[in-house]
Amino acid sequence: MKRPLITLLTDFGSADHYAGAMKGIMLGICPDAHLVDISHEITPYAITEAAFTLSQAWTCFPEGTVHLAIIDPGVGSARRPILVEAARHFFIAPDNGVLTMIYDAVAVHEVREIAAERFFCQPVSRTFHGRDIFAPVAAHLANGVAPAEVGKQIGDYLRLGFAKPAPSGPKTWAGTILKVDRFGNLITNFDSGSWLRLAAEPFEMKVGTCLVSRMASNYAEIKPGELFVIGGSSGFLEVSLNRGSAGETVAAKSGDSVELRLL
Amino acid sequence: MKRPLITLLTDFGSADHYAGAMKGIMLGICPDAHLVDISHEITPYAITEAAFTLSQAWTCFPEGTVHLAIIDPGVGSARRPILVEAARHFFIAPDNGVLTMIYDAVAVHEVREIAAERFFCQPVSRTFHGRDIFAPVAAHLANGVAPAEVGKQIGDYLRLGFAKPAPSGPKTWAGTILKVDRFGNLITNFDSGSWLRLAAEPFEMKVGTCLVSRMASNYAEIKPGELFVIGGSSGFLEVSLNRGSAGETVAAKSGDSVELRLL
Amino acid sequence: MKRPLITLLTDFGSADHYAGAMKGIMLGICPDAHLVDISHEITPYAITEAAFTLSQAWTCFPEGTVHLAIIDPGVGSARRPILVEAARHFFIAPDNGVLTMIYDAVAVHEVREIAAERFFCQPVSRTFHGRDIFAPVAAHLANGVAPAEVGKQIGDYLRLGFAKPAPSGPKTWAGTILKVDRFGNLITNFDSGSWLRLAAEPFEMKVGTCLVSRMASNYAEIKPGELFVIGGSSGFLEVSLNRGSAGETVAAKSGDSVELRLL
Repeated sequence: MKRPLITLLTDFGSADHYAGAMKGIMLGICPDAHLVDISHEITPYAITEAAFTLSQAWTCFPEGTVHLAIIDPGVGSARRPILVEAARHFFIAPDNGVLTMIYDAVAVHEVREIAAERFFCQPVSRTFHGRDIFAPVAAHLANGVAPAEVGKQIGDYLRLGFAKPAPSGPKTWAGTILKVDRFGNLITNFDSGSWLRLAAEPFEMKVGTCLVSRMASNYAEIKPGELFVIGGSSGFLEVSLNRGSAGETVAAKSGDSVELRLL
Repeated sequence: MKRPLITLLTDFGSADHYAGAMKGIMLGICPDAHLVDISHEITPYAITEAAFTLSQAWTCFPEGTVHLAIIDPGVGSARRPILVEAARHFFIAPDNGVLTMIYDAVAVHEVREIAAERFFCQPVSRTFHGRDIFAPVAAHLANGVAPAEVGKQIGDYLRLGFAKPAPSGPKTWAGTILKVDRFGNLITNFDSGSWLRLAAEPFEMKVGTCLVSRMASNYAEIKPGELFVIGGSSGFLEVSLNRGSAGETVAAKSGDSVELRLL
Repeated sequence: MKRPLITLLTDFGSADHYAGAMKGIMLGICPDAHLVDISHEITPYAITEAAFTLSQAWTCFPEGTVHLAIIDPGVGSARRPILVEAARHFFIAPDNGVLTMIYDAVAVHEVREIAAERFFCQPVSRTFHGRDIFAPVAAHLANGVAPAEVGKQIGDYLRLGFAKPAPSGPKTWAGTILKVDRFGNLITNFDSGSWLRLAAEPFEMKVGTCLVSRMASNYAEIKPGELFVIGGSSGFLEVSLNRGSAGETVAAKSGDSVELRLL
């Protein structure tokens, strides 16, 4: 039998015990689980950044993988814990929109409210549902518990609207920076499939105080120090700087606006 | 047979080869070991912070787990490497007080000096006992070597006194911040079991230049920007700020004093 | 059968999806692989630092381990992906000199250009060969694919010259700082085997604006706050400060010059 796979994505950081505690709980319940960190360094409470990061990672994993996405500013409030099945993957998260890009990518998906308290670690604390609810439910799923045992299907789950640019004037679109990655690449929400045509047309992309009008197909064709747009490995247009940080040069960050104008 | 579990807690950081080298050694000796990082981001040499972090994580792991806690400012001096058994868990660390909260939590525990050089990686370096002594001993234990083979029991191991507040005046107690976590929560050494009665009484907690007098039972009931005390998931009172960092607002850090006064 | 071991060394950082995506690909191809992070926190594009870090870690792993070293400023250009066999370990990296210290340490090594596209994830992106080329090839090797199936042997691979100090005057040598580790130790390229004789001779080592002339055999014999040279666990001379950061005191960083003069 194949070892079950569980991935972890949180904003818990790497200095604290939070991720380790969740792993201990999961390995107590499902000793064969293979635990893989996607990241624990999501900006605290940054749901958009987490949604983007998960969207880039989950498709690389085999079917049957259980993905934990614990970015949970509302812990202790009435927000529901949910379990989502999509494309034969499982996703466990608070119902705060962090799975929006999963709903967008996989039209047929099933969302359940996690309610079966027999799978929780008791007593459930007020501030650490990652350890007390999300981790044990993930491990029970990895052990073969059926989603229907975890809770009932719901239709009114939260779906946010950050994933696409919107028209904002003649030949002009307003977009968003989904994330600034470690190399300072500004990953926008302009998807490459629709927007690679920029390579053939004059355009201006405005980010912060900078205008970028060069489109490149790889980093090596650009002089060090020049800003350019590239169809990144993420499937979205990215604003980059060869061997430098576009994020520092432009002083932009996750959540900031981007404006695209065709000339 | 179940795969043996070994956890790692160090102040080695994630940029260097230190943790990776220890893992290579352990997997060479015990190829089936499941290695789980608790954290490598403990503030360098911060024994209290490491002790707290370990105390929060180990109880989440199943019996039989081997826990490495390598915060070792005295490496190369005469401080002893020790092996502790408590509640059917194993702990391997330098004898510098980093296991104090284990001794406090589990009254019946057995401490041995690690002395059996046949389990070490030779030659033993002067500055990296994590790789040369602690890691290989952990892996041999995970392989089933009996603690008695590793060294003799000792009684004069180091136990520190940071884990409890002390009376400092009429209705006044002096405590310590054990850790500032990633969200800026100031985790104090006032344990919730004894001090949750604050919820029913007027009080003032002084941290840095701030006075906190509000007790909450979850984050959601507090306005963004307000400081409050909460019985955190750690089992201790924490000073928090809803959707903000109490640590930044108060400019406090691990090891700082806290004063509690009942009014 | 033993579980195959794959290590990861990158400059991808821990905040992004990059390392997680590579792990998902590898576990899809080789579900039994044991994945071990050496580090993802190499300074972006710092080939020397990566080479040093790998050189310190790989020898701790058992034979048969596959090591990924993805520091790849030239991704998308004509630089070749390579597979190296040395001392019964496998190394997968871009051909940019990051494996220089492997070539130096293991005189007999075999270098191949990775060319067999049937092992790649299609379509191969322009900017993320870690996911599309390096990770899947590593997983196929871990599954038992023979190196000869991956590509042909080459002789003109890139080998850099950063690993040794050079004479620069009478009784004077110019060296380099290979890395500043988390504790602020300045790890030089003066190897301990050749240079421990400094313990018996008067010397001056110049780093930044500081002159160091004390040699120690362990940290404990030095007063807090004093700079000294020590034969570190890395096999190289390190400039250290007891319970402090030599890197901060001296304001030196990876790649900076060091001058040694015998008096």
